[in-house]
Formats: sequence, structure tokens, C-alpha cells
Amino acid sequence: MEPLIQRLRDIVGDEWVFTHEHQLRTYESDGLLQYHALPAVAVLPGDGEQVRAIVEACRDANVPWVPRGAGSGLSGGALPVADGVLIVLSRLTRVLEVDLENGRVCVEPGVTNVSVSAAVAPDFFYPPDPSSQIVCSIGGNVAENSGGAHCFKYGFTTNYVTGLEVVLADGEVIELGGPELDAPGYDLLGAFVGAEGTLGIATKVWLRVVPVPESTRTLVAFFDSTRQAGEAVSEIVQAGVVPGAIEMMDAVTIAATEAMANAGYPVGRGAALLVELDGSERECVAQFDEVVAICRRCGSDDVRVSRDEAERALFWKTRKAAFPAMGRMAPNYFVQDGVIPRTKLPDVLTRIDELAKGYGLTVANVFHAGDGNLHPLVCYDGRVEGEAERAEELSGRILDACLEAGGSITGEHGVGVDKKKHMTKMFAEADLDAFQRLRCAFDPAGLANPGKVMPTPRLCGEVPGPYRQHPLEKAGLAERF
Amino acid sequence: MEPLIQRLRDIVGDEWVFTHEHQLRTYESDGLLQYHALPAVAVLPGDGEQVRAIVEACRDANVPWVPRGAGSGLSGGALPVADGVLIVLSRLTRVLEVDLENGRVCVEPGVTNVSVSAAVAPDFFYPPDPSSQIVCSIGGNVAENSGGAHCFKYGFTTNYVTGLEVVLADGEVIELGGPELDAPGYDLLGAFVGAEGTLGIATKVWLRVVPVPESTRTLVAFFDSTRQAGEAVSEIVQAGVVPGAIEMMDAVTIAATEAMANAGYPVGRGAALLVELDGSERECVAQFDEVVAICRRCGSDDVRVSRDEAERALFWKTRKAAFPAMGRMAPNYFVQDGVIPRTKLPDVLTRIDELAKGYGLTVANVFHAGDGNLHPLVCYDGRVEGEAERAEELSGRILDACLEAGGSITGEHGVGVDKKKHMTKMFAEADLDAFQRLRCAFDPAGLANPGKVMPTPRLCGEVPGPYRQHPLEKAGLAERF
Repeated sequence: MEPLIQRLRDIVGDEWVFTHEHQLRTYESDGLLQYHALPAVAVLPGDGEQVRAIVEACRDANVPWVPRGAGSGLSGGALPVADGVLIVLSRLTRVLEVDLENGRVCVEPGVTNVSVSAAVAPDFFYPPDPSSQIVCSIGGNVAENSGGAHCFKYGFTTNYVTGLEVVLADGEVIELGGPELDAPGYDLLGAFVGAEGTLGIATKVWLRVVPVPESTRTLVAFFDSTRQAGEAVSEIVQAGVVPGAIEMMDAVTIAATEAMANAGYPVGRGAALLVELDGSERECVAQFDEVVAICRRCGSDDVRVSRDEAERALFWKTRKAAFPAMGRMAPNYFVQDGVIPRTKLPDVLTRIDELAKGYGLTVANVFHAGDGNLHPLVCYDGRVEGEAERAEELSGRILDACLEAGGSITGEHGVGVDKKKHMTKMFAEADLDAFQRLRCAFDPAGLANPGKVMPTPRLCGEVPGPYRQHPLEKAGLAERF
Repeated sequence: MEPLIQRLRDIVGDEWVFTHEHQLRTYESDGLLQYHALPAVAVLPGDGEQVRAIVEACRDANVPWVPRGAGSGLSGGALPVADGVLIVLSRLTRVLEVDLENGRVCVEPGVTNVSVSAAVAPDFFYPPDPSSQIVCSIGGNVAENSGGAHCFKYGFTTNYVTGLEVVLADGEVIELGGPELDAPGYDLLGAFVGAEGTLGIATKVWLRVVPVPESTRTLVAFFDSTRQAGEAVSEIVQAGVVPGAIEMMDAVTIAATEAMANAGYPVGRGAALLVELDGSERECVAQFDEVVAICRRCGSDDVRVSRDEAERALFWKTRKAAFPAMGRMAPNYFVQDGVIPRTKLPDVLTRIDELAKGYGLTVANVFHAGDGNLHPLVCYDGRVEGEAERAEELSGRILDACLEAGGSITGEHGVGVDKKKHMTKMFAEADLDAFQRLRCAFDPAGLANPGKVMPTPRLCGEVPGPYRQHPLEKAGLAERF
């Protein structure tokens, strides 16, 4: 490694190359703390050209690398490869271009999600809004195709990325798309968004931004059960109303968040539904009346409409506090991320309840109801022998329940290292091979974030059979990944 | 070829294999009549499994093949490879599944565009609407990522395809996406939509359909110039109004279509703007008043609002007659297809006018104004020595003008064989190489619709240098493509 490390020092300067264990500990995991590994070196490039040079140096040395943004991901996508190179993009924070006439902005990958909206405020905003939006970086959002509360109406990251400058694993720099919405040739942009850093590193990101709606109105309705609230969700959507956000919290979550946010939520109620409408003033008012009527019809006797911006902020603070608040309810928890068809919400929630009872564990449900994107929080006490394992097993069975309902193993947190074992439940071997064909086309040496996304280490090769055994696997080192 | 043809007969039955010249003439070109070539054989499979078997047979015989839907494409995408196999998908016309609860429909590739809407009527419809929608097939729409008048508001084919079953060039069958909107792993779906048959053949297509809007209102406003009408377009969009469609016709087009459709349009006026609003009744009414006011402010003294469905149909008939009507104005014409940023409309129209004068030819402009998607019709008389060549040159220079304005060489007709020479104007060598990497990952032998999209024949190879010379090129046979 020493010659490679020296080359990295030459590229970015000594002060941006970290090799001491105490420096590297910072980077040993991302937001998913179950997995950790120490890279041999962490390097912090200062611009896109340095990223290219680093990737080229790794190619020459045949050393695997992992890109890292803010490290707030929840699937272990930025978990370092042990003894590999970690490329930390937190210095690439420039907003390169703001073109409001055409609704476009071009940023470097280290720019945080909220900074994009800040750069185009007050008339425009960038809709995809992960709960971690204050810290998470656009590069990470692109890697994971991040979503958020407003994605039901506005779509995911992939619906807003119109162009990427990408450094491929062999050091070649390509441009996919651009400021325009559509281009001839293959649409590779979609494949790179959500590729979790396995196809290359984005060094420039062109994003579409949209006008801030004229009016925004928010309500919270309380129900006796998540089933009632789920029915309200279905009715709202069937009525043709497209809320900016439609979020649900169950009884456990209401209790936990109320203890933290003090919003005056009635602890003990079965479900809270937060509905936000945005658009023209006239449209908002008309649809708001309709939503209130539907909530009442579905059994809500307590509908609270935000009277001002402060109250609206409080509603949202309560919702966004759900994950941190859970720390008060249990010493530890796993955040699961699954998707189900919206119409299956009541059935799957019942099934999760049964499973939780069977395992003797508490599961809190908080989710993007419009998308059918569940975030069950499986609570456990890591100090109790075997409880972590039971919680992990329950978490996996909840995912199976999502799949049985015709859903998916991840809505917005990505596959990373955590869910690659579940990929075979969703995809046939031929479909996984199709992924591998793409992977090999852009990273034949397997150096770009290896060991993520794909269920088993595979190698691109010319030998018969779809793919050779990975040399690390052969050498008994596959567990490094 | 004889053993291959026999194998094709065994797969589909004698009656669905055509080898006689008089049978093959039907297939010698698609909607772009400038190019023609005779395949050795045309084969019409009856289901997806037969498609797979045909592709496998071609792979074993190492013979190139071209997929063909309705043959209404305008870029020569379905032009046969001379002496190759043409796979005609017109028998695959089954609607396999209609799931209105989740807004999904699954169809075979030979189903026509209008049949999709018919299958989900009266409550739902399928928005992308090429002018050829009565005949064009969904498989062709997927191949070309087709658009249409309503794509400004509703998006293109790629925004509606949620899943594909695809036969790859080596006969492997994969599923990309599915009925759900989002899936983990690489998003290959976007890359396959618009790939013009060079990555495989879709045998099943899952589409999203949307509720028919409560209300639809249409107006036509007449202006003295396309510049005024262009300003109205900009103002409408800037006001936050998102019309279902916003179409412009210039003076030449008004005169030609009026002669055919007799809609009472004022021949002699400089431009007609057709604006359609859809949505809730309340929203439509409010926005309609705003659009009328903007049109008047931008110089229109003649705004006609459709009074009933019959008049609305007449407005649309006039717009959709633009291409056929041009046959009355000139013996021949080329349809160009370019995109420009909407804000550049007035400048580019002026430039096209100058170019037309310089060449002594008439150019009619009809276009999807909201998208900045121009369709200049370059009129000429093929009987006049050299006029066709002049018209073709002018057509190319119009495309250059689109590129200079920051636009693209195609909005919705695709690259096919016609525009591949222009690809180098839009893409750097590294970007074209990225396309080729994808192509080689899925069709290493180069059998799937070769000679389309990419500017020069390239081959996937293991030898150094990006790609080896194509063997047909080596043998001096590249002009077969």
C-alpha cells in the first residue's frame, strides 16, 4: 500500500490523507452501526480532477475503494473495504451553477441536501427530503436514490437528477445527461442513480428544482387504529388528491415522540396521520376540506389543522423526531425499510403486529404512507443475551412479509451491505446476472465499492459460466467484504 | 441462411416465415422512406417464448436481427439489416393484465398505443400520445421512448414503463422492474427504454395508467407571429400553469391544415397556439381565464374556446393533420425533430426562417411548444434536380441550430439510422464509449439491431484500445449497415 498512499499524498497533499487508526475510526461505519471495517487510508480530494486521479491510482495499484459522502446512510453502503481506500467527498461542497430560468442547479457531490434548496430559495426548492437532509450529501442521495416525506407527490432523487459527471473505475470521466431533461442514446443516468457507488463516483450533479408552491397546509388526524388511518390514506389517494406528504405514526411512535416534542399529541391513540397539501391557494383549500371529510369518515374524531407556520413546523418536528425519540423507549433498535402496495397497508401492519408479539419485542411503525414505504423500528435491549439476534431475525421476517405482499426489500435506504442477502428473494438469477453485466461493463476489475448490493461476490471474466469465483472468495478472504 | 430459416419455420410454423421478395418489400423501410433494405427473412412470432427461440436461433447462426413493431417510426430504427432477420412483433397483441386499483396494465409489445387507453377506459388513460397512436405499437414506443402532444404535462414513455420482460441477444430472458414503481439494484429499465432495440426485445410491458381528468378545456389563439406566440408560451409556463398540451403551428402549417380540415382557421395569420388544460373543473376554469388573458396580452386578438367535444376534436384534428396536410403544399418533405430550451424558441425560429430563405425552400413549423420540441417540415420537389439534397442539407443545418441553442438532435423520433451521424455533435468520445460499454454488456456479438444509434460500427472485444474494428467494416461491408 505504501507506494499508493504516497501517490495519494502527491495528489491531494499530506494534510488530506489519513492513515492513523485514531483518524480512521471516524470512518469505520456509516449510519448503520452494526457493520464496521477500517480502511488502510482515507483520502479527501478537493475537486473532481483529484477524484479522477485517486481512482486512477487505485486502478494502477489494483486496490478497491469506497466513496463516502456524509456517512449518514442506513444500509452500510459507505462501509469501508478493510485495508482498501476510502474516498471521502466532504470537501466537494461548491454550488457550481444556479439557473433559475430553466430550473436547474449544478453542485458538487459533497453539498448537503438542504444546501441545494438554500441555493435556490426563496422561489424554488429541491423536493427529495430525507429525514437526514441537514447532513446528508447530494452524492450520497444520488448513490442511494434517496427519498423522503415529500416523494409521494414529487418523486425520488432519480426524478430530479438530469445530469452527472462521473469518474469510472478505470479513471475515465464521462458525462451522462446534462442540464436538459432528455437526450438521445442510452439513458445511463437512471442506472447510475441508485448504483450505490459501484459504477463510479459522481463529481458534478445537475439537479432540477421546482417553484415553491403558493400555499401549503398541514393537518394531523388521530385514529383508533392504523387500519382506520390506512383506509383514510387509500380514500384520499382514490379521490385523486395528491398530498405533498402523507405520513403515518402508530401508537408506540406517538408516545415516544410526544415525550420528546411535546406537541400535545394524545398518547394512547392508535395512529396519527399527517397530511400536507401544497399547490395554488384555491386548490389547497378545496382539497383540504375533502381530506378533513375523509379522515372523519374513516373514524377520526380529532383532526388538527396547523394555524400558522410555527404549528406546521411542530407537526413536522414531531414526525422527524420519530427515530431519535425511539431511543427513549428502548436501549437499541433496528430501522427496517420495506415497501408494500398501498392497498396492502392494513394487512401487513396486522402481520407485523403478530410477528412482534411472537418474538416478544416491540415494533414501532412510522412510514411514508402514500408510497407504502414502511419504516418499522424493531426495539430491543442489546444487554439481554440473544435479544439483538432475535430482533434482527424479526426485522428480516418483516421484510419477508413485505415481499409476500408484493413489495420490495428497500424503499429508500438502499441495499448496501445490509440487504444484499435479501436480493435473491426479489430477483431471479438471470436478473442478477443482468445487474452484473452492467457492473462489469463499468468496473471490470471490481474495485468500485465491492461487496455491496450484489448478493454474492462475483467477478467479471472471460471464462465460461456466467462469472468466475471472486479471487478474494477463492483465497478465503470473502468475509473482508 | 437455409438452416436458420428452417429453424425459424420450426419455431413459428411455415405460415409466419416470409422469404419471397414480394413479401419482404412490405418491410424494406419504416416510416422514414429514405432508407430501405431487404432482410433475408421476416419472421412473425406468436408469443414471447417464440421470440426467445428466434433470438437464440440467430445467436447460434451468428446472424443479425432487427425488431419491428408497426413500422411507423421516423428515424429508420426498424430498417432491416440487409440479408439479416427481421422479427416482426405485430402478432403479439394481447392485453395480459388490467389492474386499475393500482393503475397498472401489462401488455404484449404489438399492442397499439390507443389500445392501451381503450383497455383502461373510461376511468383511466395512457398519456404518451404520438401522432401515430392509432397504428404505432407499445414495443416501438418503448424502443424510441416516444412522446406526443401531452408529454409536456405528463412525461414520456419512460415515465410510464414500470417493468419489462426482455429477451437479450443471447436468448436469456430477464425481468426489469415490474408492476411496482421502484426496485433495488441497478435501474436498468431506463436504459432499455429508448435503446431502439439494440439491447434486446421487450416481450411484456408493464405500464402505469392514470385517471382521466375530471375536466378538459381547449382553446386556439391566433397571433401575428410565432415570436408573439412563443412569448405567450413562456408566460403561461412562468405563471405556473401546466397545460395538458401546448402546441404551435406557423403560417405555412395553418394554411396547409385549413385546406384539409376546414376548421375555419384564418389563413394568413402568423401563428396558432393550441392550449389544452385538464384537471379538476375548478382548477381548469381558473387557469383557463389566466391563459386567455396571457394570450391577449401577448398580442392575440382572436382566441377561440372549444364549446363542446366536437369542436375540441376539430381543433385536435387540425393539429394532427399537419404532417399529412403538408403533402398538398409540396410534393415531398423531410420531417425534422429537434429540441431547444423553451426560452430560445423565438431566436431559433428566426434562425430557421433565415436558413430557409438562404436555401430558397419552404419550411413549415409545427411543434410541441411546451417541451421546445420542434418539428420543422422541410418542403421540396424531388423531381427538381438537386432539390432533395439541398433540403436534406437544410434539414441538417436546422439541427445544428438546435444544438447551438443548447438543444438536442432528437425530441421523440429517436436516432435510428438517420441521426447516428449527428451523435458525435452531442457526445464526447468517452460518452459514446460509455454507451458502447452498455451495448457490449448485453449484446457482445453485435447482433441486436446493429448499425443503429451509434455513429460508427464498433465491436465489443477483449483486445486493447476501446473497441476493435467491426468485422463487417474490416471486410468492406460496413455499408450494409
